[in-house]
Amino acid sequence: MSTPPPDILRCAYMELVVTDLARSRHFYVDVLGLVVTEEDDTTIHLRGLEEFIHHNLVLRVGPVAAVAAFSYRVRAPEDLDKAEAFFTGLGCRVERRKEGFTKGVGDSVRVEDPLGFPYEFFHDVEHVERLAWRYDLHTPGAIVRLDHFNQVTPDVPRAVEYLESLAFRVTEDIKDDEGTTYAAWLRRKSTVHDTAMTGGDGPRMHHVAFATHEKHNILSICDKLGALRMSDRIERGPGRHGVSNAFYLYLRDPDGHRIEIYTQDYYTGDPDNPVVTWDVHDNQRRDWWGTPVVPSWYTDASVVLDLDGKPQPVVARTDSSEMEVTIGADGFSYTRKDEDSMPEWKQGEFKLGNQL
Amino acid sequence: MSTPPPDILRCAYMELVVTDLARSRHFYVDVLGLVVTEEDDTTIHLRGLEEFIHHNLVLRVGPVAAVAAFSYRVRAPEDLDKAEAFFTGLGCRVERRKEGFTKGVGDSVRVEDPLGFPYEFFHDVEHVERLAWRYDLHTPGAIVRLDHFNQVTPDVPRAVEYLESLAFRVTEDIKDDEGTTYAAWLRRKSTVHDTAMTGGDGPRMHHVAFATHEKHNILSICDKLGALRMSDRIERGPGRHGVSNAFYLYLRDPDGHRIEIYTQDYYTGDPDNPVVTWDVHDNQRRDWWGTPVVPSWYTDASVVLDLDGKPQPVVARTDSSEMEVTIGADGFSYTRKDEDSMPEWKQGEFKLGNQL
Amino acid sequence: MSTPPPDILRCAYMELVVTDLARSRHFYVDVLGLVVTEEDDTTIHLRGLEEFIHHNLVLRVGPVAAVAAFSYRVRAPEDLDKAEAFFTGLGCRVERRKEGFTKGVGDSVRVEDPLGFPYEFFHDVEHVERLAWRYDLHTPGAIVRLDHFNQVTPDVPRAVEYLESLAFRVTEDIKDDEGTTYAAWLRRKSTVHDTAMTGGDGPRMHHVAFATHEKHNILSICDKLGALRMSDRIERGPGRHGVSNAFYLYLRDPDGHRIEIYTQDYYTGDPDNPVVTWDVHDNQRRDWWGTPVVPSWYTDASVVLDLDGKPQPVVARTDSSEMEVTIGADGFSYTRKDEDSMPEWKQGEFKLGNQL
Amino acid sequence: MSTPPPDILRCAYMELVVTDLARSRHFYVDVLGLVVTEEDDTTIHLRGLEEFIHHNLVLRVGPVAAVAAFSYRVRAPEDLDKAEAFFTGLGCRVERRKEGFTKGVGDSVRVEDPLGFPYEFFHDVEHVERLAWRYDLHTPGAIVRLDHFNQVTPDVPRAVEYLESLAFRVTEDIKDDEGTTYAAWLRRKSTVHDTAMTGGDGPRMHHVAFATHEKHNILSICDKLGALRMSDRIERGPGRHGVSNAFYLYLRDPDGHRIEIYTQDYYTGDPDNPVVTWDVHDNQRRDWWGTPVVPSWYTDASVVLDLDGKPQPVVARTDSSEMEVTIGADGFSYTRKDEDSMPEWKQGEFKLGNQL
Repeated sequence: MSTPPPDILRCAYMELVVTDLARSRHFYVDVLGLVVTEEDDTTIHLRGLEEFIHHNLVLRVGPVAAVAAFSYRVRAPEDLDKAEAFFTGLGCRVERRKEGFTKGVGDSVRVEDPLGFPYEFFHDVEHVERLAWRYDLHTPGAIVRLDHFNQVTPDVPRAVEYLESLAFRVTEDIKDDEGTTYAAWLRRKSTVHDTAMTGGDGPRMHHVAFATHEKHNILSICDKLGALRMSDRIERGPGRHGVSNAFYLYLRDPDGHRIEIYTQDYYTGDPDNPVVTWDVHDNQRRDWWGTPVVPSWYTDASVVLDLDGKPQPVVARTDSSEMEVTIGADGFSYTRKDEDSMPEWKQGEFKLGNQL
Repeated sequence: MSTPPPDILRCAYMELVVTDLARSRHFYVDVLGLVVTEEDDTTIHLRGLEEFIHHNLVLRVGPVAAVAAFSYRVRAPEDLDKAEAFFTGLGCRVERRKEGFTKGVGDSVRVEDPLGFPYEFFHDVEHVERLAWRYDLHTPGAIVRLDHFNQVTPDVPRAVEYLESLAFRVTEDIKDDEGTTYAAWLRRKSTVHDTAMTGGDGPRMHHVAFATHEKHNILSICDKLGALRMSDRIERGPGRHGVSNAFYLYLRDPDGHRIEIYTQDYYTGDPDNPVVTWDVHDNQRRDWWGTPVVPSWYTDASVVLDLDGKPQPVVARTDSSEMEVTIGADGFSYTRKDEDSMPEWKQGEFKLGNQL
Repeated sequence: MSTPPPDILRCAYMELVVTDLARSRHFYVDVLGLVVTEEDDTTIHLRGLEEFIHHNLVLRVGPVAAVAAFSYRVRAPEDLDKAEAFFTGLGCRVERRKEGFTKGVGDSVRVEDPLGFPYEFFHDVEHVERLAWRYDLHTPGAIVRLDHFNQVTPDVPRAVEYLESLAFRVTEDIKDDEGTTYAAWLRRKSTVHDTAMTGGDGPRMHHVAFATHEKHNILSICDKLGALRMSDRIERGPGRHGVSNAFYLYLRDPDGHRIEIYTQDYYTGDPDNPVVTWDVHDNQRRDWWGTPVVPSWYTDASVVLDLDGKPQPVVARTDSSEMEVTIGADGFSYTRKDEDSMPEWKQGEFKLGNQL
Repeated sequence: MSTPPPDILRCAYMELVVTDLARSRHFYVDVLGLVVTEEDDTTIHLRGLEEFIHHNLVLRVGPVAAVAAFSYRVRAPEDLDKAEAFFTGLGCRVERRKEGFTKGVGDSVRVEDPLGFPYEFFHDVEHVERLAWRYDLHTPGAIVRLDHFNQVTPDVPRAVEYLESLAFRVTEDIKDDEGTTYAAWLRRKSTVHDTAMTGGDGPRMHHVAFATHEKHNILSICDKLGALRMSDRIERGPGRHGVSNAFYLYLRDPDGHRIEIYTQDYYTGDPDNPVVTWDVHDNQRRDWWGTPVVPSWYTDASVVLDLDGKPQPVVARTDSSEMEVTIGADGFSYTRKDEDSMPEWKQGEFKLGNQL
């Protein structure tokens, strides 16, 4: 790749198309407590309590629930030129708008990237109040910032190669002994990831993750969902990830878009930060406590839009599926590698996942 | 009932028979951090960090994993006489030992109670150091006291009637519209329970529960089990109970005995403390977040011993089973009562429990 | 004492006279998040989130900030007769109102007790919703229940003797080698106290304490006070008590009434619960971390009213003052008893309290 | 400045000279739980649980307690050449050792910087196990990484200019209306700081800070110090900073070196990250809850060594002192700016700081 990539700072916001704006507003604002920067009849711009840029999430009403943009902030205005050249060089469709694609953001480049995802890059952005000190506005489940995206794509190694050309660096991945890669986590900022690539039928959006300060904040979101009789929006968790070592919770929004609430991964900013590779059969990779991953978490994801606003066609994964190799008749997961036999006490009767 | 019952203060300790004392010691002492009061080749006496009586748990090695005693402390030495008379009046087998049945405890009455459980009552007990202030000994998952027992019995209303004659009071229960009672929680001390009665084949011991101060203490136990590659000892949770409103985790010890770690229920000490009745079909009764209960939690339990140390025969429950009426083809659970139809977004694909 | 005392369950509510009801409502409702059961132009009835009786705090507007009642709930209606007889027998002024002294409460006895405090006893009370499960209403600093009162009185041993005749039991106290008692903690319910007696000019009310579930709840109250630029309402803490082992924070309400927020003491319900006696010179007795007690905490307190609503005259303490014997020229506090000399590193320069 | 600065990644470790190695080992290892990477009779290399480089703290025994190095990791080996040239260009004394100055570290440049501090730069470093997942080794006060340094220097604006030439960026500072700068926080990694400059007699080391995940971890360190009767090592806190919004605790090690335990500041990685300027008279700048800063925190600091190991002479600050302008007869602090008068309730009697 001779064209230099733009200098990406961090994942900055996602633009979600939702089918009922009031219902989504209830979920993101009234329940989760994201801060409204501004809103009108068609669009709501939301941010975390510690954010100083205009938004971390855009909800835009539309006919089909989908993702319109995975947006990254770049270091300098000149990086927009680099982004334009980089993706043009890759033969991608590229659209640049000096006035931005949504409120609060200036000069922007949107592309249909080589994997079929709508990526956006921008630098100019309106500053708003960082509400970090406004504890009078904090809720028990206070969300402080956007943490990462997670994308579904059929060919993870190809996706990693592409993101590495954009100067992302792998921090962790899931593989097997046969050389199949099931997922990879890649970062620009100094956390475990700005985005992850999950193997599956794609391009689709697996989830968008927001951070809290402490674990009890995440638990309080579950408690509140129970109180509101919305506990069925909890898809998976709360739990501790093996990958990333973070504490997590997965929710499904009213359109089925998956949201993660996430806290406490680790510093990754050194160039020789050690990559952690997990065996796909290690039952603690996805949940450190061995709690089974629910099937919907593997199978469901949101469609993404092209630059005309039409859903991108989904291509099936041809490599092995993580769900199939780890659970069910053809798969297996272990708690202790190299253990010849089952432990004496009745392993396998305790956890639901072993019975699927 | 003309014979007055003893004045029970609280559940005080459980005596567990374990089949490999070293293996159980590793679990309870090295992993969970219970404090050893004293130990020899056959028996270990353990307590929580805030306890001042000799022990809350006795591990005694034996050929068959079982429960030898559910032991309650009574207010005064004279209550031993009352206990003896009370159970003799019920036609139960009663054994009294002035020197106690185990170290640290004096004058004690053990009975085979009307439900077949080995209940013990004592007042005299050796005092030991309350380690509440000894933070140099506390671990991340610090267990501070015994909280409650949970027993499996076929006929819950009969069990409630018996415990009420012992001056226990119901705080919460699970019923259905047809008048079946599936479980009941009863207290002497001012928490939600000293013991609970769970409907099922019995007499068996469902679990014994220990308390921590905060929720993060419980999460840290899960994290440690993961680090030790013992995550398969986690059976259910962590989560928030509907019943009791407490935060919980269920583990299985090396013999399969079920241990709960529990924190933050509520004050129940007033005589008119409101009883909370839960509908058996309410999907948030057992887990406020709607996380499915794993089948083993309903089916597995520990046998209990008679006063000769022989396992009590188990009698099958004839009433409806909570598991069957709530999950599977013949059961149902709701998140929102009186909801005519499934919500528009794809409920039922997210949570594993819906798929059993 | 031949007259049997009433069977007291617990401290139940305090009636505070405040001089500006709107200002106090802002503090207790908007800032601290206590739940309004009902209110009118002169009175606000408040409770914690886990309470099922009508109120735990009454704010009544009046000309002079004061305490109108320390109110305890008794076990049965008949205990009101016992209370009436008990205090009549002591020669105290007693007033009984079948309709209660405030909303939500029925038959009540109010007395000017032997120490000059307005004590109330009641059993009949309106039940309201226990909001324990209503996590949609919980705030980061969620207050769940009333925990205890703290009273200032000149002669602590006399006060202890009186409360013991009311069947309170001492759990902890502060003494010196000369036999002076500086403070004592006494309980009816199974916590460290329902009330404490602090030596000083009295009768006065030192503080009323409310409980949260976890320590971070208390920290979040501080954070919110900072955000509202009300940090000067924080008088002392947050910190860890030596006495009670609880985590604490002291606030001053708009009238200067002192409020404690408190969490995590220990079970005290056994009749032989060990009494913990602290040396008045132990610098960790009041704060386990050795943080100095601010002088106002020792000197300030609220006046209490007689049954005519007039302030009770304050009698000076003649025994040694805890403040004087522990700080300043005539006092001393140690971190390590029996340490001959100061440690090599520069103790005494670090903590402000050493410099007063 | 024509010579380009090295590309600094982050503060990496501090080398402390201690006078009694066993006593310091007890403090840092047994009490605080830092992980020993390796040790011998003269030196101990320590790290946090999430660190993958050889150490974050070196304790070296010596005759005078002092700081031998503030060490930063640079992005690439070539940055060592840049560091050498940069400081040579500034006329500083520079020493380069290919084999490093201590175990685990390779090619290093140490300088006596323009402010008199011993700064070190390195890239090559031995990797060790990142113990993030080793929860079996975590303690209640688990320290996960080094967070920042804090340096005392007489002329803060000059120090800021120098650090900006090294490509540090200011995130927050404390000033007054007359244009005096009292302190500044500067970062390379994406947190509030890698080092801060505190105005005072210097060059001296104010503190070195380590991070935990949650606030309760910090509280547990205080609890443990109390249990060990070492509470007098707590100098200030725990509390919430205004500057940085982090939760903090200051300890003094056995030689009087100041250690901060710190958690939860915010992301600062964008080039236009908003600078927060605090008024020196704002009483919430140093502690958001208004808790007074103890005088020793302003006055005490550790001497630093030159490259020969001799203490650098200390130059007095000539600008106004933060302590003097904020407390005492000549200073003032406000909770609410522009408040004409004291509030009606008795402000000024509650907090100790107001009485100095």
